[in-house]
Amino acid sequence: MARGRKIYEGKAKILYEGPEPGTLIQYFKDDATANNAEKRAVLDGKGVLNNRISELVFTRLGGIGIPTHFIKRINMREQLIKQVEVIPLEVVCRNVAAGSIAKRLGLEEGTQLPRSLVEFYYKKDELGDPLVSEEHIGAFGWATAQEIDDMVSLALRVNDFMAGMFAAIGIRLVDFKVEFGRHYEGDSFRTILADEISPDSCRLWDMETNEKLDKDRFRRDMGGVTEAYAEVARRLGIIKENENGSGGAEIVSIKGDK
Amino acid sequence: MARGRKIYEGKAKILYEGPEPGTLIQYFKDDATANNAEKRAVLDGKGVLNNRISELVFTRLGGIGIPTHFIKRINMREQLIKQVEVIPLEVVCRNVAAGSIAKRLGLEEGTQLPRSLVEFYYKKDELGDPLVSEEHIGAFGWATAQEIDDMVSLALRVNDFMAGMFAAIGIRLVDFKVEFGRHYEGDSFRTILADEISPDSCRLWDMETNEKLDKDRFRRDMGGVTEAYAEVARRLGIIKENENGSGGAEIVSIKGDK
Repeated sequence: MARGRKIYEGKAKILYEGPEPGTLIQYFKDDATANNAEKRAVLDGKGVLNNRISELVFTRLGGIGIPTHFIKRINMREQLIKQVEVIPLEVVCRNVAAGSIAKRLGLEEGTQLPRSLVEFYYKKDELGDPLVSEEHIGAFGWATAQEIDDMVSLALRVNDFMAGMFAAIGIRLVDFKVEFGRHYEGDSFRTILADEISPDSCRLWDMETNEKLDKDRFRRDMGGVTEAYAEVARRLGIIKENENGSGGAEIVSIKGDK
Repeated sequence: MARGRKIYEGKAKILYEGPEPGTLIQYFKDDATANNAEKRAVLDGKGVLNNRISELVFTRLGGIGIPTHFIKRINMREQLIKQVEVIPLEVVCRNVAAGSIAKRLGLEEGTQLPRSLVEFYYKKDELGDPLVSEEHIGAFGWATAQEIDDMVSLALRVNDFMAGMFAAIGIRLVDFKVEFGRHYEGDSFRTILADEISPDSCRLWDMETNEKLDKDRFRRDMGGVTEAYAEVARRLGIIKENENGSGGAEIVSIKGDK
C-alpha cells in the first residue's frame, strides 16, 4: 500500500499518512528504549511480533465493543489505523505491583493490588512522563471529565478482557499501558483506544514460573527479549507451536519483510 | 496545664496526651527540616510564631464553619487540640506553580495555574511523600471516597478564605499543605482539619515585591527565615507594628517561654 508523508516518529513506531483522509499507517520498528530512552537497542523481529500481537488484541477488543483505531494489518510491520487526536496521557492499569508503583509506594514486586488500579501519566519525555491525578488533567485541559471517565472504564474493560485472554494461555497480566485518542466523526468525536498493546506495553508473567515475557527483560538486561515476545505470540496462536522467535521458518520470513 | 505522656514527635511538633480524654497538646518546636529531613536547623522563635499564626488561622476557619481540631492556645508553644485519627495524606492546594509541581510538570515558578488544584501526597517519609491519585487512596484504603470529597471541598474552602485573608495584607497565597483527621463523636466520625497552617506549610509571597515569606527561605538558604515568619505575624496583627522577629520585646518574651 502506498505510504504517504511521515507524520511522526516515536521510539518504537512511525506514523505515515494513510491512503485515505482520516487514516494513518502505523509502522512497528525493532527499536527498543528504556529509562526514558537512556537505554537503546535494536531487537531484530520485535516490531513484526508486536504488529501481529497488537493486531490480534485490538481485533478481539473490537469484538467486545471497545472502540479502537485499528482498521487492518497491511503487512508484517504495518497497520492501517484511524487518525485520532492523541490525548497526551499514558493510561496504566495495574493488577500486581511491579515497576514504578512498587518503588513509589514501597510495595514488594509481585504483590497483588487490593483492586485493579488505573493511573495516568502525562506524556512528556522531557519530564519523564510524570504521574498525574485527575485534578492535573482537568486543570491543564489534557482531557475532559467525560474523557477521563471513558478512559478509566475502557481501561478496566480492556484489563478484564486481557486478564482472561492471558490467563487462558498461562500468563498473568501484571499491568499494561494504553493510550487513547479523540476520533472525529462528523461534528462529534469519541474516545477510542489507540497506540498498541504488546509485550512492549504490558507486563506478562508466566503463571507457573513467574518468568517475565515482556519488556522488563530488556529494561533489566535479562536477555531473551525477542524470544519472550515470540513465546507470547506462540501461545496466542499467532506463530506455530514448533517455531521459536529467532529461528522458525515463519519468523525468518517475517524478518525478511521490510 | 499538665502535660501527659508524649504520643508522637514529628519534625516540627510534638503531641502529648491532653488533660481530658480525646484531647492532645500540640507543642511547636523550633526545628526546621527540608528535603525529607536531609537539611535540618533550629530557628529560634519559629515554633512560637507558628503556634500564634496557626491559632489565628484555625480560629478564623472555625468561624466560617470549617471543622478543625483546634480548641485553644495554652501558652506560647502549645495548643490544646482534639484527638483525631490522622488520615495519612498531605493535601496540597495550589494557586500558582512553585516547588514540586513546577519541576514535575515543567511549569515556570510563578505561573498562575488555570484553576486551584488539590493534590494528595501519601505521608511516608521513607518514600519521600509520593504524589498519589484518588485511585491509590481508594485502593489502599487510606481514605474513603466520602473522605476524599470532604478533603477536596474543605481544602478549597480553606484556600478561598486564606487567599482573601492574605490578599488583605498584601500577601499572595501561592499554595499550602493541610492534613485531616477522623474525629470520633459517639459512634460516628467526621473529617476535620488537623495539623497546623503556618509559613512552614504555606507559600506566601509579598504581592509587591514577590519576596518569599515562608519556608522556602529555609529550603533555599535565603536567610531571614524567622524574620519573614514574624513579618507575616505582624501583618496579621499578631505582633506589634514596631517589632521585628528577632529583637522586639514581645518576641523576646515569647522566646523566654519554654
